[in-house]
Amino acid sequence: MKLVDMNVAEFISVLGSDAPAPGGGSASALAGSMGTALTMMVMNLTVGKKKYEEYDSQSREILKKMTKLNKQLVAIIDRDTEAFEGVSAVFSMPKQTEEEKEKRREAMQAALKTATLVPFEMMGIMVEAVNETKKAVGKSNINAASDLGVAVLNLKSGIQGAWLNVLINLSGVKDEEFVEQYRKEGQKRLDEGCKTADEVYEEILKII
Amino acid sequence: MKLVDMNVAEFISVLGSDAPAPGGGSASALAGSMGTALTMMVMNLTVGKKKYEEYDSQSREILKKMTKLNKQLVAIIDRDTEAFEGVSAVFSMPKQTEEEKEKRREAMQAALKTATLVPFEMMGIMVEAVNETKKAVGKSNINAASDLGVAVLNLKSGIQGAWLNVLINLSGVKDEEFVEQYRKEGQKRLDEGCKTADEVYEEILKII
Repeated sequence: MKLVDMNVAEFISVLGSDAPAPGGGSASALAGSMGTALTMMVMNLTVGKKKYEEYDSQSREILKKMTKLNKQLVAIIDRDTEAFEGVSAVFSMPKQTEEEKEKRREAMQAALKTATLVPFEMMGIMVEAVNETKKAVGKSNINAASDLGVAVLNLKSGIQGAWLNVLINLSGVKDEEFVEQYRKEGQKRLDEGCKTADEVYEEILKII
Repeated sequence: MKLVDMNVAEFISVLGSDAPAPGGGSASALAGSMGTALTMMVMNLTVGKKKYEEYDSQSREILKKMTKLNKQLVAIIDRDTEAFEGVSAVFSMPKQTEEEKEKRREAMQAALKTATLVPFEMMGIMVEAVNETKKAVGKSNINAASDLGVAVLNLKSGIQGAWLNVLINLSGVKDEEFVEQYRKEGQKRLDEGCKTADEVYEEILKII
């Protein structure tokens, strides 16, 4: 059964169980999904309103982009758990002969790279979502200002959570070039996303 | 239909819609629910394991407390939206006569106080959860270290998100004593929760 098809209470219960997946990766994708959804809600409460007429076309643009990013993040909730299960599956591969051992090592490296790339991709989507959300601050329904704040809080925790998952998977990867590349680019995404999210949060605190 | 009975994809979709509730308050409670669930998972992957024998009784204690806090947070997902709907309901009350206006004002003040108290309560539960999670750092299954990090990230964003909801509701409350009390106590919860969560996150970054 797909995680997104479980009801919320059930998802939380599976998350808390002794099954190692779903774990922090899928939780971070869900945090990002909530973040993008909240910005969508604020845009939905802004478009077509006389008071925010001058921001109408920008608001519609943000809503459109955010809807796309939201869909991607909702899909990643399950994709991250699948990537984790790909790593787990390697543990049941035979390791008697040298050939089997070699095959197992290769499979593990491939699985760890996939399990790195999924949260790395997640980070990129969430950084874009934070940047879009920033555009709406002070130019959207003031009654929902706190919701815009909660949007970036969830996106920030999603970015940082995905980063922890990039790091823990990279720690098992032997390909040094790969490790260096995704450490560097991941750090860049982390810094950009956190900085912008913090700016938005501080701005919201001033408004409300 | 209760929010926790919706499936995850459906919840995200309702969150993103033009309905003002569920909004940031319920999203923050769900973030806290994920946070507590992730600490529960790490404890479930620690108890009864030979390698973590010396922490076994502490781990069981944390698991027990965290299970209680998790239940409270899952219940608050719906309670926060109900509190918001309590505020919305006042808008449809009659306001023709002076008596009606007075009744309406009183109902609004009562509803705003409730809508303040629910996220304030949420903050307390999540601060306790962060403190419990901190105890487990370095004393729990190392393979799930990143999950412990994601736990506090979600709890922190939940605390900050709940704080934004306390503030936005307080902004409509006329009772100055009430406002001062919950501003002061909320700020205390915010500072304590964020400080401890940041400490845990930094610690996790060193471990993984």
